[in-house]
Amino acid sequence: MKSIGNLLQSGDWKGEKHVPVIHAPAKVSSGEKFDLKITIGDAIGHPNSFEHYIAWFKVFFHPEGGKFPIELATFNFTAHGEGDNFTEPVGLTTVKLQKSGTIHAISYCNIHGLWENTQEITIE
Amino acid sequence: MKSIGNLLQSGDWKGEKHVPVIHAPAKVSSGEKFDLKITIGDAIGHPNSFEHYIAWFKVFFHPEGGKFPIELATFNFTAHGEGDNFTEPVGLTTVKLQKSGTIHAISYCNIHGLWENTQEITIE
Amino acid sequence: MKSIGNLLQSGDWKGEKHVPVIHAPAKVSSGEKFDLKITIGDAIGHPNSFEHYIAWFKVFFHPEGGKFPIELATFNFTAHGEGDNFTEPVGLTTVKLQKSGTIHAISYCNIHGLWENTQEITIE
Amino acid sequence: MKSIGNLLQSGDWKGEKHVPVIHAPAKVSSGEKFDLKITIGDAIGHPNSFEHYIAWFKVFFHPEGGKFPIELATFNFTAHGEGDNFTEPVGLTTVKLQKSGTIHAISYCNIHGLWENTQEITIE
Ligand SMILES: [Fe+3]
Ligand SMILES: [Fe+3]
Ligand SMILES: [Fe+3]
Ligand SMILES: [Fe+3]
Repeated sequence: MKSIGNLLQSGDWKGEKHVPVIHAPAKVSSGEKFDLKITIGDAIGHPNSFEHYIAWFKVFFHPEGGKFPIELATFNFTAHGEGDNFTEPVGLTTVKLQKSGTIHAISYCNIHGLWENTQEITIE
Repeated sequence: MKSIGNLLQSGDWKGEKHVPVIHAPAKVSSGEKFDLKITIGDAIGHPNSFEHYIAWFKVFFHPEGGKFPIELATFNFTAHGEGDNFTEPVGLTTVKLQKSGTIHAISYCNIHGLWENTQEITIE
Repeated sequence: MKSIGNLLQSGDWKGEKHVPVIHAPAKVSSGEKFDLKITIGDAIGHPNSFEHYIAWFKVFFHPEGGKFPIELATFNFTAHGEGDNFTEPVGLTTVKLQKSGTIHAISYCNIHGLWENTQEITIE
Repeated sequence: MKSIGNLLQSGDWKGEKHVPVIHAPAKVSSGEKFDLKITIGDAIGHPNSFEHYIAWFKVFFHPEGGKFPIELATFNFTAHGEGDNFTEPVGLTTVKLQKSGTIHAISYCNIHGLWENTQEITIE
């Protein structure tokens, strides 16, 4: 079967403006709340117009040794020029994780499709 | 790099209650609107409770020979027992596609993660 | 305090293309699943382009005599011309309600803001 | 007609744990990007469990003298105990506004319904 997994693009965010960048501590204490921020275009800005924009980020957590990813958050960036107002592709929330694992971020550009990135996090 | 694509599960919907089922015509005329319906658990129902439910479907279209998938719709099923009210994992919308390609559906179970399915569609 | 409730527009859907139309049975039996469909522009179509489109519907249920509305579903119509593909403002799901009350639908046009409609439903 | 606007609750966030709190500068320069953060329960924390949680925030901007609110962002807080992981009701994004007006935030508790707050912002 075809899988949409094969259409998930990645790359180095320093050279590719569609790759989400995950800002999270490398280590946190068990039961500690921490801020998780996703950005895009940290090195090269992405367009933001009616015709071309980053529509959303989704963030998942995959516990080490676990079978299933858990969705943490979705950020929808809804304004793309309406009345000359704009929402930039920046999303932050606060999370509390139980064990070490991998944070997965997905971004969606309405023209250039799906992009992903990951970051490991250690829970002590 | 790890990819969340590797965590997308699939299977035969007749035996696996998490696999989204895509109901769409095999062929439509160019410029014709048609109903696209996504269901789950057609053969074996999935639980729907505060602790265990299908939270959403996302639907993408990948034009034949194209590089990028285009998101068509997201359906969020928000009620899981609040006041004994429930939304079932059923989502329908109407779309108009330009050329032949593949419809991809993703479902998310809050306990059992991400599942996917596809269906080819011919635009004449 | 200002309330966004004062910015919710309504009207007769036969004359106003932004008003969501709620298609649901007037009566259902207790514990019976039924289809709930929201459309817009049933009489006069709404534009669907990069610059002007219906972005989403939200649907709530307010039980008779209850204090709080319960969200049933959100429908996001994501494609507005990408590769000449379009999602129309049509959303259907299946619900199961516990008692009589009011179904509230909200639609959002990226240019013309928030619109609402309601329909009473009797659960026997 | 009944309006869901009549079901939007408000209050002082210092005494009511459901009211969204808008963190934004009182004044920004025209064309300047700034962070817009929405929180809840700043004084009194809100529960976060399978049965009771803050599901989302929506943020709108209503330009002074304008007829329609423009949606800026939606934040979905998806994890409520799955594998003992939690997303807290905190959402930040970055926006660029064209003129002075009112920021509206809505929060949704799956048990206690819809809540709102506003903050004026001056664009110089
Ligand atoms: Fe792009
Ligand atoms: Fe499941
Ligand atoms: Fe409009
Ligand atoms: Fe509550």
